[in-house]
Amino acid sequence: MNSEDLMRKFFEGDKFAIEAGIEIIEVNEDRAVVRAYIGPKHLNANGCVQGGMLYTIADFAFAVLGNFRHPITVTQCGSISYVAAAYTGVVTATATETVRRGHNTVSDVVVADADGNTVCVCRFNGFVKDTDRDEVFAKLAEK
Amino acid sequence: MNSEDLMRKFFEGDKFAIEAGIEIIEVNEDRAVVRAYIGPKHLNANGCVQGGMLYTIADFAFAVLGNFRHPITVTQCGSISYVAAAYTGVVTATATETVRRGHNTVSDVVVADADGNTVCVCRFNGFVKDTDRDEVFAKLAEK
Amino acid sequence: MNSEDLMRKFFEGDKFAIEAGIEIIEVNEDRAVVRAYIGPKHLNANGCVQGGMLYTIADFAFAVLGNFRHPITVTQCGSISYVAAAYTGVVTATATETVRRGHNTVSDVVVADADGNTVCVCRFNGFVKDTDRDEVFAKLAEK
Amino acid sequence: MNSEDLMRKFFEGDKFAIEAGIEIIEVNEDRAVVRAYIGPKHLNANGCVQGGMLYTIADFAFAVLGNFRHPITVTQCGSISYVAAAYTGVVTATATETVRRGHNTVSDVVVADADGNTVCVCRFNGFVKDTDRDEVFAKLAEK
Repeated sequence: MNSEDLMRKFFEGDKFAIEAGIEIIEVNEDRAVVRAYIGPKHLNANGCVQGGMLYTIADFAFAVLGNFRHPITVTQCGSISYVAAAYTGVVTATATETVRRGHNTVSDVVVADADGNTVCVCRFNGFVKDTDRDEVFAKLAEK
Repeated sequence: MNSEDLMRKFFEGDKFAIEAGIEIIEVNEDRAVVRAYIGPKHLNANGCVQGGMLYTIADFAFAVLGNFRHPITVTQCGSISYVAAAYTGVVTATATETVRRGHNTVSDVVVADADGNTVCVCRFNGFVKDTDRDEVFAKLAEK
Repeated sequence: MNSEDLMRKFFEGDKFAIEAGIEIIEVNEDRAVVRAYIGPKHLNANGCVQGGMLYTIADFAFAVLGNFRHPITVTQCGSISYVAAAYTGVVTATATETVRRGHNTVSDVVVADADGNTVCVCRFNGFVKDTDRDEVFAKLAEK
Repeated sequence: MNSEDLMRKFFEGDKFAIEAGIEIIEVNEDRAVVRAYIGPKHLNANGCVQGGMLYTIADFAFAVLGNFRHPITVTQCGSISYVAAAYTGVVTATATETVRRGHNTVSDVVVADADGNTVCVCRFNGFVKDTDRDEVFAKLAEK
């Protein structure tokens, strides 16, 4: 099982993300891309994609990238800036690492709507534990 | 229908919050309190309440408070600091307004677990539109 | 030398804060209050107190509180929400700890102008190292 | 006077930035770069570049970019993530716009030390007023 598939397997355990219909499209050293098809269950009282849903998909993209690049990464802070509303179709979140020094990692996530327009941007601060990636991945593979 | 019930009615339209099992406990000039009973669907791959769920309940508390105190409030930014993991039972989010000046409002939300311990704190920046609360509430009551 | 005076002594080493005219008014378990008299050197191109100055006074209040309550605290993230402009007179920053769990601390700072009106609010996330306060304070006293 | 020089002229009025020794190196549609040579006056009690100084240089880079690209931009929120300490030499802040939609702009700033290593990253949310850039620049040129 390759590393990308290991990530998919591990995140099958993320019930909240699954419930929200979020799936992993791609994960590698450069980026993680996740996606959700928008339905009535994702909307707020004004008929837009709910703010918590937008944060959730961004946070999930960050979690996938962080766990791939340097497990175990613990999220310390997250922030989201909403720039436009999203309505229907699909939303995609793309996470890239902005900087990593020692235990500190900062990653940015862009969430785009079906037309590729940015609806919000997120930034996450994580603490990277001193763990051995090969070991963590080997344990995941055994499960 | 009193103002608190109007808020409950309005937020019945928030399908993502309903899907996540979040309910309004209290809303008045001082604060909004919302709550969710935690089940398997709220957990992440490590068995903790998922970060997106924690943000969602906090954001919802802010939305309820903002729409009660000065509709229409548009969320511009949100941030979350995770300080401990939450596991089971119930999580409660309490929103209070920290400052309001002109179009700007900043509110803080504390999310606590079943033992009353804080698991994360959130801060939201909103833009308050110049709307007439009585008028907005009258329209809601008519629906 | 009492703990408050130790803090004053330690922060005499903070040349940037001194250059900005910031002085410690009060520090105890409950809060830290710092203050700066505003002059031409604190203003931006629009004649308001510069955004960096407002952040600096808030960050300093947090540093004083953190080093008093649980040295050594390392600042990880800071955020600032501007709600109104400040012009002249004096600005005061009051820091209180919002939550502390294990290594994590979150503190909030309110910056007010001469009339006591809030001009901005800040939130800081710190990592608290496992150090012995009495020992740290004893070392400071010896210097 | 070209647009870059107009910006230099306008920001001569930013007394706090000047006091901190910050100068504009470059500003164009793509980015703003500002720089400060570090001396004793920029340090904190631990001998590192003070956190407020790091924020100030980042905020200034954002202000220069925002006022160049779409004056008048009002800063609403700023956040900073510290990833390493900076000591001596020079610090450089580079601002780029991450997204602009309608009145909302989000820009990111990377602050690097003399070796080009990132010491902190900042994100700023601004509100863009509907003003005519040519008109604003013409007024600046007249002053």
